[in-house]
Amino acid sequence: MELLDFLIHFGVTSDLAAEAHALLRGATKREVPGVREDKETYPQAQVTTITILNQEGARALGKPVGTYITIEAPELLRENPPAHEEIAKILGQKLSLLLDKWKIGKSDPVLVVGLGNWQATPDSLGPKVIGQFTVTRHLFKYAPQSLPPGAHPVSALAPGVLGTTGIETAEIIKGVVEKTRPRALIAIDALAAADLRRIGTSIQISDGGISPGGGIGNPRQNLSRENMGIPVIAIGIPTVVHAGVIVYHTIQLLQQEIPEAGFKLNRSLAEKLTAQVLAPFGGNLTVTPKEIDDMIYNQAWVISQALNQALHAALLASGAALPLH
Amino acid sequence: MELLDFLIHFGVTSDLAAEAHALLRGATKREVPGVREDKETYPQAQVTTITILNQEGARALGKPVGTYITIEAPELLRENPPAHEEIAKILGQKLSLLLDKWKIGKSDPVLVVGLGNWQATPDSLGPKVIGQFTVTRHLFKYAPQSLPPGAHPVSALAPGVLGTTGIETAEIIKGVVEKTRPRALIAIDALAAADLRRIGTSIQISDGGISPGGGIGNPRQNLSRENMGIPVIAIGIPTVVHAGVIVYHTIQLLQQEIPEAGFKLNRSLAEKLTAQVLAPFGGNLTVTPKEIDDMIYNQAWVISQALNQALHAALLASGAALPLH
Amino acid sequence: MELLDFLIHFGVTSDLAAEAHALLRGATKREVPGVREDKETYPQAQVTTITILNQEGARALGKPVGTYITIEAPELLRENPPAHEEIAKILGQKLSLLLDKWKIGKSDPVLVVGLGNWQATPDSLGPKVIGQFTVTRHLFKYAPQSLPPGAHPVSALAPGVLGTTGIETAEIIKGVVEKTRPRALIAIDALAAADLRRIGTSIQISDGGISPGGGIGNPRQNLSRENMGIPVIAIGIPTVVHAGVIVYHTIQLLQQEIPEAGFKLNRSLAEKLTAQVLAPFGGNLTVTPKEIDDMIYNQAWVISQALNQALHAALLASGAALPLH
Amino acid sequence: MELLDFLIHFGVTSDLAAEAHALLRGATKREVPGVREDKETYPQAQVTTITILNQEGARALGKPVGTYITIEAPELLRENPPAHEEIAKILGQKLSLLLDKWKIGKSDPVLVVGLGNWQATPDSLGPKVIGQFTVTRHLFKYAPQSLPPGAHPVSALAPGVLGTTGIETAEIIKGVVEKTRPRALIAIDALAAADLRRIGTSIQISDGGISPGGGIGNPRQNLSRENMGIPVIAIGIPTVVHAGVIVYHTIQLLQQEIPEAGFKLNRSLAEKLTAQVLAPFGGNLTVTPKEIDDMIYNQAWVISQALNQALHAALLASGAALPLH
Repeated sequence: MELLDFLIHFGVTSDLAAEAHALLRGATKREVPGVREDKETYPQAQVTTITILNQEGARALGKPVGTYITIEAPELLRENPPAHEEIAKILGQKLSLLLDKWKIGKSDPVLVVGLGNWQATPDSLGPKVIGQFTVTRHLFKYAPQSLPPGAHPVSALAPGVLGTTGIETAEIIKGVVEKTRPRALIAIDALAAADLRRIGTSIQISDGGISPGGGIGNPRQNLSRENMGIPVIAIGIPTVVHAGVIVYHTIQLLQQEIPEAGFKLNRSLAEKLTAQVLAPFGGNLTVTPKEIDDMIYNQAWVISQALNQALHAALLASGAALPLH
Repeated sequence: MELLDFLIHFGVTSDLAAEAHALLRGATKREVPGVREDKETYPQAQVTTITILNQEGARALGKPVGTYITIEAPELLRENPPAHEEIAKILGQKLSLLLDKWKIGKSDPVLVVGLGNWQATPDSLGPKVIGQFTVTRHLFKYAPQSLPPGAHPVSALAPGVLGTTGIETAEIIKGVVEKTRPRALIAIDALAAADLRRIGTSIQISDGGISPGGGIGNPRQNLSRENMGIPVIAIGIPTVVHAGVIVYHTIQLLQQEIPEAGFKLNRSLAEKLTAQVLAPFGGNLTVTPKEIDDMIYNQAWVISQALNQALHAALLASGAALPLH
Repeated sequence: MELLDFLIHFGVTSDLAAEAHALLRGATKREVPGVREDKETYPQAQVTTITILNQEGARALGKPVGTYITIEAPELLRENPPAHEEIAKILGQKLSLLLDKWKIGKSDPVLVVGLGNWQATPDSLGPKVIGQFTVTRHLFKYAPQSLPPGAHPVSALAPGVLGTTGIETAEIIKGVVEKTRPRALIAIDALAAADLRRIGTSIQISDGGISPGGGIGNPRQNLSRENMGIPVIAIGIPTVVHAGVIVYHTIQLLQQEIPEAGFKLNRSLAEKLTAQVLAPFGGNLTVTPKEIDDMIYNQAWVISQALNQALHAALLASGAALPLH
Repeated sequence: MELLDFLIHFGVTSDLAAEAHALLRGATKREVPGVREDKETYPQAQVTTITILNQEGARALGKPVGTYITIEAPELLRENPPAHEEIAKILGQKLSLLLDKWKIGKSDPVLVVGLGNWQATPDSLGPKVIGQFTVTRHLFKYAPQSLPPGAHPVSALAPGVLGTTGIETAEIIKGVVEKTRPRALIAIDALAAADLRRIGTSIQISDGGISPGGGIGNPRQNLSRENMGIPVIAIGIPTVVHAGVIVYHTIQLLQQEIPEAGFKLNRSLAEKLTAQVLAPFGGNLTVTPKEIDDMIYNQAWVISQALNQALHAALLASGAALPLH
């Protein structure tokens, strides 16, 4: 009974492809077919690129075909502005890379959506980013003179969450995409990891699509290229771990510590235990560190900087200073 | 040169039909053709219903044909919970009246949109209401057993403002309406009045459509039955007055005080003065009282209560207690 | 190795005396000397009053001598306004009871402090309450005519948290108490429970003092009658469970399920496991439900109503409607 | 009847010494005795230093003896991060200058207070700054190893406003100063200007003390060296203009435009007009631009950066990265 397997059973997958891949390789002790892994090292970050090449790889990792780039940067968890600037720069470069992969030109319109709930801090990353980077779509109509040639029309939306709107997030976004016709969708979300050490230290950027609210236990309709009709680039940072992960780690450590006890903890028992421990709130329980507000504040800053760098190169180069919103 | 006229020149109309009507009658000293006014008195409120009957009335008041109900309730500005409950009840009844007028049945789906900017207190009324009343649309799919027969599927959206999204609010809403097919739209917004005494003391509910951000100086695309394809009911409370109103009142009082001075203040001079005084920030300047946060808090509570009473009569009667969002 | 014991070892006590008492009686299968328990039943609530009579009881429960009243009301977790009103009324009565116990007269000044961090939703209960109930202290100086005879001078403070201020919360409050000389302190805080089912369903009101941030792992200086020099009444609602509780429950269930395995899970092993699982973030990890924002919203409303009822009886009876803040 | 005079009559002084000085010199057409003015020019800012040398100057400008530095930087009102960084640097240098003037050593404890109301956007600058710069006082006790030699113990407080707390802000701060014994107080506040063009474009830093809520019409107890017993450095940015300023400008322009009309607008008439126009809300009416939220966001960032640069030079030089709050 491996973590990945176990978590999937409880509807709790890791949102991080790099994590899923490491778990799977750890379990099987061999390469995963249909998956390629590349690594780069920067002074402030380790970057792992998982490429899911085909359906075999997709099945193995439980994620669609696509590129999944994970930037591991522990300094995100500390008050270290110079490191944060460097991390933002790496993220901006990776975003440019994926935009290029999908042939999104310098002046193609782009819609950025901030998923999640701004009133619940651990889930507020997406909405916090909206409003912090530069939105230009309306300026093409109302203040074209303030824009340099080759500027991206960038729009933004914080659609809210199902519990507050009563509408699947994917439906809202699809409606806005059909009305405003962007060429690409960038989705920002707080993620769930399968390891506490991932919280606040890893950024994932991918073109494999994203399921709003997905990692925290309620898979809904997907934000994917198939559903949206345009490329979808997702940027996410783990801010929580499902409480089931704590149950699993405890069981796993017990197995290591008391192997001689003939202690045969099988899968069905593990599932029974987990179901009992997590019964309240329908198991919709998440584990977060107490410093969640500062963590989210820094993460939103890094992502906003990266968006500006990748989407507004022409603007930044022109030295134009836009009016406030 | 009358206030209404003057304000229109500066793109600053009053959002309140009752106020526009009173200004017009005051100016012309006679009945306005195509407009009917009815009054009711409640212990905590004076209710004025302006019915714009035809295009003649529409032209005169600068508002579309429709019913405009204004609830004047000065206790909204004080810490007086029993009065607030009574005001919410009146508003709920008027909302039911308009839903009936448009033949919105008890189980017809309804979308509530909260216009405005949650990060700028004077403009945050709409988004503050979203999340405070009961949303049920998703429960029909995910928890139908929690709903009594005859429940309204109610959904909600806080679309943001043009400066933050880069997208006209009407476009976002139209996209979501087309995807989710409600039978009626209820729009909540902070309004601009033409009289400081209206701030926080009047609630207007109407079916004449609403222009997001309109009253505060930047008329955009309209939320109207024509544009949306479904009836639109707007609920608004004035939270600001355009700064031009202060200029106008000053000029008007001077005219009254020094008539003998041969002081002939004509319209073109008034316009010149106003343009000079309000030059900074492109004239986008609003006047608000300092207690704006408590004011908005109470207003959002009253509107949320009224929404629950008008939309969830079956639920309330059944005694069902819904899960949290 | 019992839960209470285990949790104390990890610096994680339950903030709820009723819970600590139940755990202790469950463990020892007998009455706890120096502790009395009384129960009352209301339509929407079960009320348990734990009286810690002497030092023996205090040592046993790990809490100071005093009265600890727990209102268990599961409807707090649902959208059920009539039930919430009833719960607020019970809480108001219990607050009046404790104020009477300490001979706080109708016109004695009272300071209410909202502990916690308004930027981290699970810890924002205290600050959210501040600003929602009626503050009158300044009106005695600036608007005495608006107050009926016998009104309480009520003041309020949201002091922030150590990580944001760099100052122990107790120091800030002590400074303000010395300057403003209230006769009693009422402290509102989000609590940590030792059982997931307590989250959002129990309210504790006590005069035994409170340790800001205490239940979530970092015991600091106490808000107690000894330290403050005036009676301290604490009102708290559990909004989180320490992640160690999940580890413990998992171990406990394993012991029940595999007793025959000769599986000897002793205390030192349990501690080792817990330390390993919770190593990241120095163990400062909390478990919360996803609906945390709506939960806190309702809780803040209930506590604010109770404060108004207990502190402003004269005002409410007089029908006076105060100006907004 | 000059603006300064007129405003003072309505309890509305400009919070900006540079503005008061310019008004006064404009009115008298000669130097103001007891006041010195120096100017510096930077690429992104004009810096005016007003030194009020003695009681004569203090009486003339209506401000205490002290140094008042105004940084005029129109780019604060635009999305221009490189300019904002430069402005932050200038502000940090001026803060260091004033700390040096008062002989605040590198390791002397400093308390930063954020005045204002975080729930009302135009008044939220102070509280928004709190939590964005680095607080270290508690680390000396709980994590001394993370601090380099010569670090400042910095603490912070957002005390709230009179209407919410019922306590004079100066009383709260005095209580905390007496408990925690800082060597200097730095107070951040949103200011009121007497000219719309000052909004969002000027930063004032001074050691003349500050009156919480003062500029917006309700002078209370002062935060001054006399009251607090330690040097007080105030940093403020105008975010509003009192509505009386609009009335005054209108009257003033009318006088210019119709001098020949024999139009004798004397002071008592002007006062009568203003009182009538501003009667609602007791005259507590402020004028703000609509983009207030982005404006405050940028201003809080600039001030936080400046605080870190002036207070944490040793930390920044050491390259230490502190834990999150």
